[in-house]
Amino acid sequence: MAENKATNITWHEGHVTRDARSALLKQKGATLWFTGLSGSGKSTIAFTLEHALVQRGRLAYVLDGDNIRHGLNKNLGFSAADREENIRRIGEVAKLFADAGAITMTSFISPYRKDRDIVRALHAEGKLPFIEIHVATPIETCERRDPKGLYKKARAGQLKNFTGIDDPYEAPLQPEFTLDATSTSPQEAAVQLINYLEKQGLIGG
Amino acid sequence: MAENKATNITWHEGHVTRDARSALLKQKGATLWFTGLSGSGKSTIAFTLEHALVQRGRLAYVLDGDNIRHGLNKNLGFSAADREENIRRIGEVAKLFADAGAITMTSFISPYRKDRDIVRALHAEGKLPFIEIHVATPIETCERRDPKGLYKKARAGQLKNFTGIDDPYEAPLQPEFTLDATSTSPQEAAVQLINYLEKQGLIGG
Repeated sequence: MAENKATNITWHEGHVTRDARSALLKQKGATLWFTGLSGSGKSTIAFTLEHALVQRGRLAYVLDGDNIRHGLNKNLGFSAADREENIRRIGEVAKLFADAGAITMTSFISPYRKDRDIVRALHAEGKLPFIEIHVATPIETCERRDPKGLYKKARAGQLKNFTGIDDPYEAPLQPEFTLDATSTSPQEAAVQLINYLEKQGLIGG
Repeated sequence: MAENKATNITWHEGHVTRDARSALLKQKGATLWFTGLSGSGKSTIAFTLEHALVQRGRLAYVLDGDNIRHGLNKNLGFSAADREENIRRIGEVAKLFADAGAITMTSFISPYRKDRDIVRALHAEGKLPFIEIHVATPIETCERRDPKGLYKKARAGQLKNFTGIDDPYEAPLQPEFTLDATSTSPQEAAVQLINYLEKQGLIGG
């Protein structure tokens, strides 16, 4: 039976087209780049959206510290050069995932405008949608929550170069989307983002 | 309407499970690692298989020089350390793709056993299938074909450290699969690999 099915196979020199992948997955690949302070709610929103999309039969995948810092970027530290390379590599991987047709979410503080703009340019080059989502929860809220106890350590001087304390966070000037976890639940954020993806024609309504 | 659909969204703390992705995509993520000399036929087989899988409604994606060397690995050269890092990064990206549920193919000479074994170990750690495919076309055939004119340059001394000429190719000792493009067309190779993927339960029959 496999023999029969296989008689349709033709010899191809190059990659499957993006259109063929879109038709298969019934969606268009895109990168949703979440940026914001530690504790702002980036990952919770990204995971809530990932589950919601997969429940709707859409392929979504989150790149975050868990699967990147211990893998691809485990040979990078926290120097300025390494932080820049960290974001560059994540941007390149997100671009590959988007090219493969996935709704790709990245959840990293990514505090520097220049680094995010490099990733935006990479996507523009590849004609792939780049949706910058500023999770603009005020630092007071982030610090009060402090889910990993990092602000406490930073205030005590045990963590140096902590974003928002002794290292700058450069807010996006023209993000595609802004959310504030103080006033918006992760579920509400996911609904808003799904509506946005529908309006952009990236997923079906 | 989106509001209605969205009422089912629940708040999740972590990644969508691999099982949920498998159910969605009707396949299990895996890495098919093609290794072999320049001109052995790795890319042609990988692309033929990619097209065949997508035609069957399966998500497949090829990582190759085109989308890796000019992107993620554009800051790597050809020193021993950079070659090792090149393969390591490709292995980590393949692992992410396989984790996301894709049948992922990599098409790189990847001449050193140690580097390939590192990638195999990465996949074992992540409980993801790693299928090493040795495209064992004899060097005489590869050199006669010489699709990119590289053997000619290497013989003329214009290219140094060329695999098979003045740099070793370490053949896999226990590859999951061996192909020889002299006796097997890309289409036949794709059929054999599809049968293998079916037998392994990675794609439906």
